[in-house]
Amino acid sequence: MTRPIVYHIPVCPFSQRLEIMLALKGQSDAVEFRVVDITKPRDPDLLRKTRGTTALPVLELPGEQIIKESLVILEYLDSTVGDQPIRQSDPYRHAVEQMLIAREGPFTMAGYLFVMNQDPSARESYREKILGLYRDIDAFLTQHAPDGPFLFEDFGLAEAVFTPMFMRFWFLDYYEGFTLPDTADYARVREWQQACLAHPAAQQVTREEIVKLYYDYALGAGNGALPKGRRVSSFVFEPDWRTRPWPPANKYDGTASDAALGLVAA
Amino acid sequence: MTRPIVYHIPVCPFSQRLEIMLALKGQSDAVEFRVVDITKPRDPDLLRKTRGTTALPVLELPGEQIIKESLVILEYLDSTVGDQPIRQSDPYRHAVEQMLIAREGPFTMAGYLFVMNQDPSARESYREKILGLYRDIDAFLTQHAPDGPFLFEDFGLAEAVFTPMFMRFWFLDYYEGFTLPDTADYARVREWQQACLAHPAAQQVTREEIVKLYYDYALGAGNGALPKGRRVSSFVFEPDWRTRPWPPANKYDGTASDAALGLVAA
Repeated sequence: MTRPIVYHIPVCPFSQRLEIMLALKGQSDAVEFRVVDITKPRDPDLLRKTRGTTALPVLELPGEQIIKESLVILEYLDSTVGDQPIRQSDPYRHAVEQMLIAREGPFTMAGYLFVMNQDPSARESYREKILGLYRDIDAFLTQHAPDGPFLFEDFGLAEAVFTPMFMRFWFLDYYEGFTLPDTADYARVREWQQACLAHPAAQQVTREEIVKLYYDYALGAGNGALPKGRRVSSFVFEPDWRTRPWPPANKYDGTASDAALGLVAA
Repeated sequence: MTRPIVYHIPVCPFSQRLEIMLALKGQSDAVEFRVVDITKPRDPDLLRKTRGTTALPVLELPGEQIIKESLVILEYLDSTVGDQPIRQSDPYRHAVEQMLIAREGPFTMAGYLFVMNQDPSARESYREKILGLYRDIDAFLTQHAPDGPFLFEDFGLAEAVFTPMFMRFWFLDYYEGFTLPDTADYARVREWQQACLAHPAAQQVTREEIVKLYYDYALGAGNGALPKGRRVSSFVFEPDWRTRPWPPANKYDGTASDAALGLVAA
């Protein structure tokens, strides 16, 4: 039987969610993942199927039906792959996980704006913004799951949604020196974050990979765009990130060269 | 048995969704709606239950559990009230309605920013923005439901989500002279919009009510804030909107007085 296909960008958090979901179900082979290189023009056949949109991931069903939007794909795979859904079956408990998931958009936005910020004088306001969101999540978890570590008994739907962001935010640690304050108002969210990061179903990426690939984001250039003075994207597939040196952590000093980043032969 | 309680602002589109859902199910009495007057300080007991947040609607279950976020409440009520859900039961069809629903946030944002805009020179860009979103919805409906009028056989979940916005956007018609161009690229979305507006389960508000209550939005003052020079909000309960004259349509001329708006005795 033909499997559904996920077209995705390696290292994309919105795709990692789907991988985590499948791994949780023991169904990592239920879907074929096909890599799209965003540094090259999009394949016309895929562009026809997605009716001109380029956002990824997209899911293609065997009948060529296309499902877009990471959370919609996640819900579809949760309903159709494996024996039972990861989502909570009780309506109230599902509402609780959905309330937490509703916080992910602003959380993701805050982290990406922070890493992409190029104005040193604005750092503190980005830091305050994301800390406020962490405190809100802390309060939510303290209310609904005081005993932790997860929202419910096990790593579930909300964790599949947030964990890829906790991993991407390694770029905040590296490029902004941002870590959660070691105070009581972050204790519950820190416990959750660490349990999420450590879960065996969520080990698709490493800190080193995130830090190296997202270097261009730290210079304000997102989605495969190039920082001024560079010709090769930090998201390029070759040379492999494992062979490259760690980028300079001080993002406000301007870009290192392609050669210094190991993106081209020196 | 104690019913769930929805705390809401009359005329709020995020609450009307819930009313539409219940009406579709023939279950309008399954939930008690309690009105919150946003022009007055919030009841401390409700504030305690919502843990300090003031966004509405919120749903209170008989055990005092609180569910926030309109779409989360909508899904909860769909799962728990009446014989069967309004949402599509087939996972692919549900994914299709979710893809459409995912467009509602940007659509709502574009309409509210447009009505609240105070810079005449920016009108055209707001108009272009919202027209682009209408064309996108048109293309989506043409792809998934070419025969119309609804996304599936009947007015369903996506319609419950969008119809309150189509009704709020009467304020764009009145204050911005905005209507959909009578051209082929809007034909399908216009058919959908008109079928939504006409549905018997969605008649909780009228054009006159929307135009009168949202006058302050048209002057750039949202969420019960007051335009400069005014002392009574257009959202005030008394005098009833039915007794007030229609507000002036030219929002760029500054506010009419409280008296001219029928908000206080002349």
